[in-house]
Amino acid sequence: EEGKLASVAKELGLKQNGKGTKDVIGRLIAKARDAYTGSHGESEWLLRTIPAPRLEKLRKLRVLPAGIDPVIRETMHRTHMGVDADPLNLLLGSIKCSISDFLGMDIASNLSDIILGTPVPTFSEANLGVLDADAVNVAVHGHNPLISESILQVVPEFEKKAKEAGAPNGMNIVGICCTGNEVLMRHGIPLATNASSQELAILTGAIEAMVVDVQCIMPSLSNLCECFRTELITTMSIAKIPGAQHVEFDPANAKASARKILELAVGRFKERDPKRVDIPGMKSETMVGFTPEAVLSILEKVNPDDPLQALIEKIAGGDIYGIVLFAGCNNYRVTQDSSFVTLAEKLAADNVLMLATGCAAGAFAKRGFLSPDATADICGDKLRKTLEALGNAAGLDRPLPPVWHMGSCVDNSRAARLVFAIANKLGVDVDMLPVVASAPEAMTEKAVAIGTWAMALGLTTHLGVTPPILGGKVVTKVLTETVKELLGACFIVETDPAFAYEKIKETLTEKRIGLGLK
Amino acid sequence: EEGKLASVAKELGLKQNGKGTKDVIGRLIAKARDAYTGSHGESEWLLRTIPAPRLEKLRKLRVLPAGIDPVIRETMHRTHMGVDADPLNLLLGSIKCSISDFLGMDIASNLSDIILGTPVPTFSEANLGVLDADAVNVAVHGHNPLISESILQVVPEFEKKAKEAGAPNGMNIVGICCTGNEVLMRHGIPLATNASSQELAILTGAIEAMVVDVQCIMPSLSNLCECFRTELITTMSIAKIPGAQHVEFDPANAKASARKILELAVGRFKERDPKRVDIPGMKSETMVGFTPEAVLSILEKVNPDDPLQALIEKIAGGDIYGIVLFAGCNNYRVTQDSSFVTLAEKLAADNVLMLATGCAAGAFAKRGFLSPDATADICGDKLRKTLEALGNAAGLDRPLPPVWHMGSCVDNSRAARLVFAIANKLGVDVDMLPVVASAPEAMTEKAVAIGTWAMALGLTTHLGVTPPILGGKVVTKVLTETVKELLGACFIVETDPAFAYEKIKETLTEKRIGLGLK
Repeated sequence: EEGKLASVAKELGLKQNGKGTKDVIGRLIAKARDAYTGSHGESEWLLRTIPAPRLEKLRKLRVLPAGIDPVIRETMHRTHMGVDADPLNLLLGSIKCSISDFLGMDIASNLSDIILGTPVPTFSEANLGVLDADAVNVAVHGHNPLISESILQVVPEFEKKAKEAGAPNGMNIVGICCTGNEVLMRHGIPLATNASSQELAILTGAIEAMVVDVQCIMPSLSNLCECFRTELITTMSIAKIPGAQHVEFDPANAKASARKILELAVGRFKERDPKRVDIPGMKSETMVGFTPEAVLSILEKVNPDDPLQALIEKIAGGDIYGIVLFAGCNNYRVTQDSSFVTLAEKLAADNVLMLATGCAAGAFAKRGFLSPDATADICGDKLRKTLEALGNAAGLDRPLPPVWHMGSCVDNSRAARLVFAIANKLGVDVDMLPVVASAPEAMTEKAVAIGTWAMALGLTTHLGVTPPILGGKVVTKVLTETVKELLGACFIVETDPAFAYEKIKETLTEKRIGLGLK
Repeated sequence: EEGKLASVAKELGLKQNGKGTKDVIGRLIAKARDAYTGSHGESEWLLRTIPAPRLEKLRKLRVLPAGIDPVIRETMHRTHMGVDADPLNLLLGSIKCSISDFLGMDIASNLSDIILGTPVPTFSEANLGVLDADAVNVAVHGHNPLISESILQVVPEFEKKAKEAGAPNGMNIVGICCTGNEVLMRHGIPLATNASSQELAILTGAIEAMVVDVQCIMPSLSNLCECFRTELITTMSIAKIPGAQHVEFDPANAKASARKILELAVGRFKERDPKRVDIPGMKSETMVGFTPEAVLSILEKVNPDDPLQALIEKIAGGDIYGIVLFAGCNNYRVTQDSSFVTLAEKLAADNVLMLATGCAAGAFAKRGFLSPDATADICGDKLRKTLEALGNAAGLDRPLPPVWHMGSCVDNSRAARLVFAIANKLGVDVDMLPVVASAPEAMTEKAVAIGTWAMALGLTTHLGVTPPILGGKVVTKVLTETVKELLGACFIVETDPAFAYEKIKETLTEKRIGLGLK
């Protein structure tokens, strides 16, 4: 996507030199490589991305990384037996490492958009009802969009084969987890479910192949797929599962890999046992594709000269009381999706606009909160009117949904970018804004990294379930207070969504008061 | 050290271009940086270091890393929730990561030698008796030789001050753990003790300052030092301890940092409580400095044209039955040093030559096995005569000791280099040689990495205590057999030194038979 390439290149200070797109790409990749390998000074990519007052705070704390890989190495050294024993120093080290996670995520999301296109608002459906008993169903699952994109490219070649194999409706590709979010955002491919219920998709008995790449793939899928004659296909050398078929994805021959995968899927259709097929009828309309670019493009319809101003006015006037970014996984300590749904209902009623990524977005997709219909159902009057106005401006004739799907869990930098834009426009630091992050059901290691950078970059961050990393209560309290003093943001640790709601609301109110807003 | 610089440069294919030493250093550093950042292909530094038949095996298994940092990143990704679930694939990933550990270690030891000098045979003493009640005692502890070297450079400036403070013998620097091994190897600074007993050094009540850098520093030192008015000084930003004095070591102003440290130490002498000083009288003579270069230089006295041949003939003839590298930490599941000592006594009696690094070397130093006197005490006749002949050739008029101290635990690549040289000369792979590694008391994370690369590079490796990383017994057995098939080497897991001895001996015998030796 040349437009996105141009905008990223411009941000990085890469001048057009008349040598064409390939030359710009080469220089951009060199900058991205520098961001990975840099071992001295501060990462240029970060300096050009994070708002200045926030950079200043991070610089004072010496937590601005030079490059991603050296920081990972340093962190592994720091946590080796008998190295760092100072809780605050360890915390600052974690923050430094987490900011390198933000950096990697920002690079990856931007490069993905350049290669595959920046998502735009799109309608689709979500929940297990998107499976089709009369089609060869292929679920794509994991976090790497390249494999699923390649599959989509060759699907048309297999429609006829699928029908010949006995599936009247041909091929049906569905998404699971964040590979699901990637193809949902870019192509409107329906989302079968989010991570925790990945096994339930197999239990429908209707999936011929589950294609997995990296992260959040349950090893249990292997035995389960065997029970239902589903082909489990691993695709990356660093993520194999005993019992799965491994089709190494080769980016240089992407379509060949994809064809091999779909060949296996179609071959499995004849082995399906129709008596065991049980697809729940539930599915919800979902409107997705709320990248920062897409949001600005909608706002542009309201205020062509200064799109962001349109959003800021809504916040300042209280039509949008604040913004909450819902992120993070599902966690088995919480009934799946329940904390997301409870919190969202309460916040929407209080006119809080919500952004969502990853399994949070999956939860809202299934629950119908990504549908324009949900706006009337759950939003307070002010937010409802705002979303109606924006929907009309966008030419929808319907409101925008109360929750805006921004992408996969490894696209959280998109939400950060939108918040940075607001902070930059107002000339304030990120922690001044009535914006909070919430991961009420977080579970994975990457969620620890993401939550830590969200907090370090100025977003007070709610955690519903915490991994055993916080130490004793006294240590936690001291560290929390120290961190808040240093960074203007902190973690809110609260499992009960009712209490979490109170604390999130309190934080938003505090920030509004700080800005002199009602 | 220009000689070492020239030999490393030559090995890396860096041609002399008449631009002088600085230019060579610049190109060498670029090669070292490449070894850290490389993300495609195979690391050139490795290709020029590891014997060809071993490289071929590793290449087939796709475990030759391109660069250190990307492999660490990949490993952290691979072990994230829901990524790699295949035991063999995980094991190969671990091996790839461990080989990047070897690479980093080889670079670091070589650069250390270039900057600080390659150790040569040197006599000193070891055990707590090296502390001096009449001196300002400063213990250097950790693993980074730069700080301790800087301290040694400025010690003479403080002799007078120490005497003025009331210490008739002036300054006394002693080593602990592997910083101790570094200054012992290069300067004959006496070794107070190895890692597990670092607290005992403080308990003597005679140490004014303990200067620590990284790795294996017990956080408990802080409270303990307070009890004895010892100044605990941390020196590196990634390794702080609450309650310690932090003097950031600045390589660009190394002497200034060192002076600040010794200032603090001398200042503490007046606070020492003589009634609480209790220094055990025990100490042992130690002969150290057996780098590959030093070993070759001794062998050169025996066979000037072909030094290595002298060693090979001793092995072939059975005068040296085999070589065992003792490495690894102390582990509290074993009475400190006991496994090292028991194994060494048995192996020496069987004419097995021993190399030692890190805390293993510390154990032998305290026990007196690094002294030429130990040769008559514990060696079988053939080994004794061999060591006597080598000692005479070296102009010692005494035998060489039964255990050769090769450096700190992060210098194990030196031992690998000596073994590689033998393999290359014989034109065989490393796993053919009657050489075994043993870490009977291993404990730290780095020991896992080191043990894994020793095994992967062809050295069957004995582990006395295993971290909880081996999985169930069935998995372990399958993996062990698979690994042996793939790599020709495996782990011997055996806590009891008597049984471990049998298995090590068996392995050496098997290798001798494989080479057609008696």
